[in-house]
Amino acid sequence: MIFSSTLLENAVNEFAKLPGIGKKTALRLVLHLVKQDLQDVTQFSDIIARMRNEIKFCKRCFNIADDELCNICKNGSRKTELICVVENIRDVIAIESTQQFNGVYHVLGGVISPLDGIGPDQLTIDPLLERLQQESVEEVIFALSPTIQGDTTIYYISKKLNAGGKGPAGVKISTIARGIAFGGELEYADEMTLAKSISNRIPVENFIVSGN
Amino acid sequence: MIFSSTLLENAVNEFAKLPGIGKKTALRLVLHLVKQDLQDVTQFSDIIARMRNEIKFCKRCFNIADDELCNICKNGSRKTELICVVENIRDVIAIESTQQFNGVYHVLGGVISPLDGIGPDQLTIDPLLERLQQESVEEVIFALSPTIQGDTTIYYISKKLNAGGKGPAGVKISTIARGIAFGGELEYADEMTLAKSISNRIPVENFIVSGN
Repeated sequence: MIFSSTLLENAVNEFAKLPGIGKKTALRLVLHLVKQDLQDVTQFSDIIARMRNEIKFCKRCFNIADDELCNICKNGSRKTELICVVENIRDVIAIESTQQFNGVYHVLGGVISPLDGIGPDQLTIDPLLERLQQESVEEVIFALSPTIQGDTTIYYISKKLNAGGKGPAGVKISTIARGIAFGGELEYADEMTLAKSISNRIPVENFIVSGN
Repeated sequence: MIFSSTLLENAVNEFAKLPGIGKKTALRLVLHLVKQDLQDVTQFSDIIARMRNEIKFCKRCFNIADDELCNICKNGSRKTELICVVENIRDVIAIESTQQFNGVYHVLGGVISPLDGIGPDQLTIDPLLERLQQESVEEVIFALSPTIQGDTTIYYISKKLNAGGKGPAGVKISTIARGIAFGGELEYADEMTLAKSISNRIPVENFIVSGN
């Protein structure tokens, strides 16, 4: 792509550094901004710079935060005895958007994946074990990807909790249910999911209660 | 989507204002920026703001420009007697990227389209006619969309040139060739294109010359 303006070219190159944005999309976005009011573009630019400059990670749950603690940890009406362990911030937003979970979170920062060079030390597993010792936690719910890496991570952390003596005895450990998605069709489900959904079948009386 | 950080939410909302960027894509882009160096994000933000603040439109051809004149109009080695009339800046970039055109441009800002409320006065047609009087132009090449609106615009401007006495006599008017795209298959071409490509057929000796 050959530009006749350096200002335009630089702006397009900056947008094209973003993931999933090619040169043509970047050009479309920049030409859109050229047509907007100066004030609106200045606001766009300021908000992005300010976000990167001021954003923090919650010192308790490692969620994204405006202050030392995130808004969820600061919220007095959340049940701190219920910790949902997730891989990343996107998962927190996804679960929050269901408006069905009233506990708190712990963001691991990924899952154990030796092939990608991610071991337990790269994740926030030790801070999680410390939280379990210091706070009075009743249940840890793992909401990790249903992959071998996710399962390995659950296995690793639950071993540490039970055997290492680091976590308190009697803390309940659970994982989110895996099965056929709501509205999904049986014939298109993979065999593993279908098999798990049969072996983890739910008594209908429970199903009706949880369906409310 | 429920966020636990106002900084994050504001940044996502700003990105989601861009055309073709939904909330989920905006979140992906913002979380990418969160992971980048502060310096890189500041540069991103600065370059966007500076571009919008400093960019101009060339006072001669209405292309996007860093100064009063765009880099193409400033370039002494371009043939100013050959003007290519295009709809917008994207078209200039597309033609420049072929590296086959050595004339100059005139950006109309659109095509005549009464249904969309775009008449000749909304376009840079008068400045084009002035250019044709003031500069010694040999040929005007129309490179507009092959639509009814594009054809109407070509017809309108060429009438003005020949009859209105505004343009100089003897200026050649042409349009870019329409036909089967290079690598395209005949059977998938629409009838109009195929018919035009037959009626505008090229003697093979010309074809070989222009194919070089």
